Amino acid sequence: MRLAVVGAGAVGTSVAELAGEYGHTVTALADSSGAAVDAAGLDVDAVLDRKSREGSVGSAAPDAALDAEYDALVEATPTTLGDAEPGFSHVRAALERDRHVVLANKGPVAERYADVRALERESAGEVLMEATVAGAIPALSTITDVGAQHVTAVRGVLNGTANFVLSRMAAEGLDYEHVLAEAQDLGVAEADPSFDVQGTDAALKCVIVANLLYDEEYTLADADVEGIESIPGSALELAAEDGRTVRLIGEVADGEVSVGPRLVPERGTLAVTGTRNIVQLETEHAGRLNLSGRGAGGPETASAVLADVGRLSRS
Amino acid sequence: MRLAVVGAGAVGTSVAELAGEYGHTVTALADSSGAAVDAAGLDVDAVLDRKSREGSVGSAAPDAALDAEYDALVEATPTTLGDAEPGFSHVRAALERDRHVVLANKGPVAERYADVRALERESAGEVLMEATVAGAIPALSTITDVGAQHVTAVRGVLNGTANFVLSRMAAEGLDYEHVLAEAQDLGVAEADPSFDVQGTDAALKCVIVANLLYDEEYTLADADVEGIESIPGSALELAAEDGRTVRLIGEVADGEVSVGPRLVPERGTLAVTGTRNIVQLETEHAGRLNLSGRGAGGPETASAVLADVGRLSRS
Repeated sequence: MRLAVVGAGAVGTSVAELAGEYGHTVTALADSSGAAVDAAGLDVDAVLDRKSREGSVGSAAPDAALDAEYDALVEATPTTLGDAEPGFSHVRAALERDRHVVLANKGPVAERYADVRALERESAGEVLMEATVAGAIPALSTITDVGAQHVTAVRGVLNGTANFVLSRMAAEGLDYEHVLAEAQDLGVAEADPSFDVQGTDAALKCVIVANLLYDEEYTLADADVEGIESIPGSALELAAEDGRTVRLIGEVADGEVSVGPRLVPERGTLAVTGTRNIVQLETEHAGRLNLSGRGAGGPETASAVLADVGRLSRS
Repeated sequence: MRLAVVGAGAVGTSVAELAGEYGHTVTALADSSGAAVDAAGLDVDAVLDRKSREGSVGSAAPDAALDAEYDALVEATPTTLGDAEPGFSHVRAALERDRHVVLANKGPVAERYADVRALERESAGEVLMEATVAGAIPALSTITDVGAQHVTAVRGVLNGTANFVLSRMAAEGLDYEHVLAEAQDLGVAEADPSFDVQGTDAALKCVIVANLLYDEEYTLADADVEGIESIPGSALELAAEDGRTVRLIGEVADGEVSVGPRLVPERGTLAVTGTRNIVQLETEHAGRLNLSGRGAGGPETASAVLADVGRLSRS
């Protein structure tokens, strides 16, 4: 397939770098200040080299990527809330041209799901979004394969930064501020970690799951969200005395979306450590399925994007 | 889709019972002594009721199901080795009619993979086989989505009976014969458990994985297989002193297929307990993925069959 990749951060860059290995061609790549377009296929290494030298992938206007020749648009700009722009407009531009969309950006399907599906119904293009939930873990495709109506609950650890902080606090007996600073030094937490530690990122993923499971539109405003900032180290010590620990658990069940710190068995399936994620599906006919792996990272998330592209090229 | 289900054991019966919930119609169901066929859709409850009263689903010859109107043939007869008959002939009959095949029977793709693929190339029908490996766990579809060429190793616990025996031996300090008898009482092990405890069943699953990963034909004869019959309880005690336990691990890596008892960390990901299965994929770009759940059972395996049917109906 010919791919136009919008967004040249860790995920967009990895998609562009790996596309050739998966048999696809990158015909456009855009960052926030420019775009490179070549209907015959970009020299991705050269384009990324230009970005590192000159600050942008190309001299064309960023929106030139939207007008390029492509079969699927990969939307990998940063997630934004509310109107989900500019991601939403990129999705619309592709669908109006009857092209497929593969999302790594959570915004359009967490905040404007009904609008995206309405545009998709009018289009010959299809929208896939495996990369928006839990990185490399095949959460959404497993829900699709089991059948959304046969999945009774989804829960899990969906934010690697929060999980790193909680598992380090528990393992080392350190306080939140201390571990957060360490995580920032390691590059696991961002300078402004609020999106991760306040539970927003996990909640957006749960909202996307709810939108797949239920036949009505959920947005972040429908989620009951609590973060990990106010958990004292002593709470983890108390939990450990009882063979338990604390994880930031997102859950979608019975029409409700919630994210918050929960006590889980210390040796249990949900107590993944470090930046790993886990998604647990409760199914009507097949019992419980546990899926765990790397929930973030450029190549990991790109792998989920390219799995969606593969699904589109087989269908 | 219209489904012809051949084989009316636990899996075939569950597929027939659940098909309607997934939007499909069962136009034929066959057991070893008869078949029921109705192009407009069988009354599955009535047919299964007949089987419980009269011993067979219908009075037509079993092969009448192969000649029925259907879009996909669900092959759920017992796995056989060597020529993989009669399953292989059922696969051929469907593909020669340009119909899809969904396998629950491991034989055709473990023992005659190249023959199946050759028939598929000549057919408008497609062959899917998610249900042949690890029941409800989406092992093969995840390999397909990641891309077989980007999966560097697959290992896991692929036989619930052997895992039940080993985890009970470790937990209770009992001997193999004692736990096996208990498993037989519980219906977890069959009267003749050799297929499970000698590693054959796990090896067939690994052979199927190898056939997907590598571009050459593997059969059971290519697998290095050791069972769990000769493991003394004392070996598990020694392992436990070192924080480890024993699991029957199947592995496909570097072109080799092996199954045998292996030491694994007692609290580690591979040490699933009871009849649960786990599949661990090592990937080139997305790190390690762990998928665990129920590896056997009628509805669980039927769920994997119906996931394949769903994929076919979307493509």
